[in-house]
Amino acid sequence: MATPKINFTPGPSQLYFTVEDHAKVAFREGIPSLSHRSKKFESIYKDASDGLRELLGIPSNFHVLFTGSATEVWERIIQNLVERKSVHLVNGSFSKKFYEIALQLGRAATSIEVTPGLGFSDQLQVSDDTELIAVTQNETSTGVSTPLQVLSELRKKHPNSLIAVDAVSSLPYPDFDYNGVDTVFFSVQKGFGLPAGLGVWLVNERCVEKANALLAKNISIGSYHNLPSLIQHEAKYQTPETPNVLGIYLLAKVVEDMLRVGVHKIRKDTEYKAALLYNELNAHATIRPFVSDKALQSRTVIVAATGNATKALTDRLLENGIQPGDGYGPAKATQLRFANFPTHGKEQYELLCDIIKAF
Amino acid sequence: MATPKINFTPGPSQLYFTVEDHAKVAFREGIPSLSHRSKKFESIYKDASDGLRELLGIPSNFHVLFTGSATEVWERIIQNLVERKSVHLVNGSFSKKFYEIALQLGRAATSIEVTPGLGFSDQLQVSDDTELIAVTQNETSTGVSTPLQVLSELRKKHPNSLIAVDAVSSLPYPDFDYNGVDTVFFSVQKGFGLPAGLGVWLVNERCVEKANALLAKNISIGSYHNLPSLIQHEAKYQTPETPNVLGIYLLAKVVEDMLRVGVHKIRKDTEYKAALLYNELNAHATIRPFVSDKALQSRTVIVAATGNATKALTDRLLENGIQPGDGYGPAKATQLRFANFPTHGKEQYELLCDIIKAF
Repeated sequence: MATPKINFTPGPSQLYFTVEDHAKVAFREGIPSLSHRSKKFESIYKDASDGLRELLGIPSNFHVLFTGSATEVWERIIQNLVERKSVHLVNGSFSKKFYEIALQLGRAATSIEVTPGLGFSDQLQVSDDTELIAVTQNETSTGVSTPLQVLSELRKKHPNSLIAVDAVSSLPYPDFDYNGVDTVFFSVQKGFGLPAGLGVWLVNERCVEKANALLAKNISIGSYHNLPSLIQHEAKYQTPETPNVLGIYLLAKVVEDMLRVGVHKIRKDTEYKAALLYNELNAHATIRPFVSDKALQSRTVIVAATGNATKALTDRLLENGIQPGDGYGPAKATQLRFANFPTHGKEQYELLCDIIKAF
Repeated sequence: MATPKINFTPGPSQLYFTVEDHAKVAFREGIPSLSHRSKKFESIYKDASDGLRELLGIPSNFHVLFTGSATEVWERIIQNLVERKSVHLVNGSFSKKFYEIALQLGRAATSIEVTPGLGFSDQLQVSDDTELIAVTQNETSTGVSTPLQVLSELRKKHPNSLIAVDAVSSLPYPDFDYNGVDTVFFSVQKGFGLPAGLGVWLVNERCVEKANALLAKNISIGSYHNLPSLIQHEAKYQTPETPNVLGIYLLAKVVEDMLRVGVHKIRKDTEYKAALLYNELNAHATIRPFVSDKALQSRTVIVAATGNATKALTDRLLENGIQPGDGYGPAKATQLRFANFPTHGKEQYELLCDIIKAF
C-alpha cells in the first residue's frame, strides 16, 4: 500500500501546502540557527504577531505570546488567571484534560459536563465567584463545536469572569468577537498546517491584571512563562527562553500566505467542504454524522459514526491514498474523524465524498 | 558584507552539518505531520533515547524525557524535586537564572556565588537539609566550566542531596559519571547543532521517587509535564502533549551521525580545537582568555577578553565570513565568545586562529 497522499487526521494534520518551500528558504537563510536575541528574530516575531492580528482580527489590547504547545497554555492559564475557582465546559477528552489540569494545580475547579456528541446552549449559568470560564470551542475528540452565541451570552451574564477559549482545532476558521473573550489559544499543527511544537496564546489586559493581582498576593504564577515575563519580552518581540524559532518563522510565512488567499475565502471554503461531507454522511445508508445537532456540528473536525464499517471504510480510504483520523480513545473502533483545515482542498474533499458515497 | 559562513555564536549555533539533509528526508517522509500517537513516532522517540544512551553512556536507571526548552527544565526540576531548599552554584547569568526560578517558585533557595570568570573548587559545603544542589556545569555566559571532580566530591559529601547538572552548552563533550548525579539536561541548539525548540531532560529513579513523595504530601508538582506524567508516557515512547516531533526526529538522526563518528573522536577533536584557540589567545599581545584558571576553562564555549579591540576584531572576523558570539550582557563591549561544538570543524578553528594571530 502506498503512503497516503492526503492526511485527514485532525492533528498533527497535513502540512499547509507552502510549508516545505518555506522550510527550504529558512535553511538557506540560516533561520534554524538564528539567535533569538537578534534583530532578525524580533522582526520574525513581529511578522507572525502582526499577521495573526490581521488574519484573525485580534485587537490591539491583546498580546500575542508563544509557548511550547497548547497543552502548556492550559497550565499557564490556570496558574496565571485562577486563584481558586474555574468552571469548565466539558464535552470530550480535551475539555476534560483542561479541567483536570486545574484540579492537578490545586484549584477548586468544577465542570459542567455533557455526554460526548452533545454541546452547550446559551442557557448556561455559573456562580458569581467564578474567576474563569473555560470553553473548548471545538472539541477535537468528538467534533462538537460551541456556537459563538454561547460565548457572547456567557459574557453578558458573567461580565466579571474571564473567558478562556480553546480554539486548538478551529482557528483560523471562527470569527471571534475578541471584545467578548479574554484569552484564546491554539497550536500550529492543526488549522495552520505547521510542524508541531509551538502554541500561540492570545491574552488581553484583563488577563495581565489578573496575573499581576495574583502575584501581588504572593500566589505562584510560574516562572519564565508567567504572563508578566512573557509580556515583558513580547514588548521587544522576544521570548524568555530560546523558542522554536523555525516554527515561529514558518507560522509568519503561512499566515502571510493565508492573508493572500483572504480569511473570508478560507472561511467560505471551510463551510463549503464541511457541507459536502455532512451532506454525504446524512445521505449514507449506514454512516451518519456523530454529532446530530446541526448547530453543534464542527466545521473543522468532522466526526463520522462509522460503527461496524469502520475498518472496511478505513481500508477503502487508504487504498485511495486517503488517511482518515481514527475515532478518539474508546471511539477508535466505531468512528472516523476528518480534519477540514485550510490546507485540505475542495478537490480532496470531493474525492473523499465520492469514496464514501460509493462505499 | 556577505552572510557569515561560519557561525561561532554559542547558541543557537551553527547547525550540525547533516541537519539540512535530514530535514529534507523528514518532509519527504511526512514526519512534520506525523501523529505523536503513532507507532512511527514511538520508534523515533526510541531511536533518539537509545542513541543518546549509547552516545553519552546514560545508564538504564535514567529516563530520557523531552520538554520545550532547557529553561522549562529549570522550572520542572524545582517543581518536582524541591520542597523547600535548593542550593545553586552561581557564577554567571544562566546559573543565576536557574537560582532565580527557584526563588520565583517560592523555594527557600540559596546560592553560593562567585565573580563571573571564576568557578568552583571541590571544597564546597552545603547544609545537610539541602534537597537539591544545582550545578551549571558549563556557564555559557562566562565560559567557565565546573570540573567533573567537583560533582563527584559533592556526591561524596552530600549523598542525600539530589545533584542537578545543567549541561546545556557542553554535551555531548563531558563524560559524566551518571551514577554520581541525579538529573542532567540540555537543549538541542548548542552542542547537537539542531534547530531550537526542544529540551532533553535525563532523570534517575531517585528523582521520580522525590516527585512522588512531594505529590503524596499534596505539594503541587505541575501538571502535564510533571515527572510521573512524563514517565508514564515515556514507558510507551510517547509524550503527554503534541511535542516537537520534527525536532525529536532530527535529534535521533544527528545522534546516529555522531555515533558513526564516535564520541571518543568528538571529545578528542573538541579538546584539540579548544587547545588551538586557547594557545592563540595566550600568545596574543592584546587579547587573552577571559577565564584565567586553566582548570576552569570551558572546552565548548571559549570566551576571549577582547577589551577595546572587540569591535575591530568582530569586523575582521565578519570580513572573513566568521560570526563570533557577542560577550554576554554587560560584557558585550569587551568580550567575544566562540562555540566549540561538534559541528565546528578543525579547519574552521584553524582559520579562526589564523585571523586572530594576524590581528
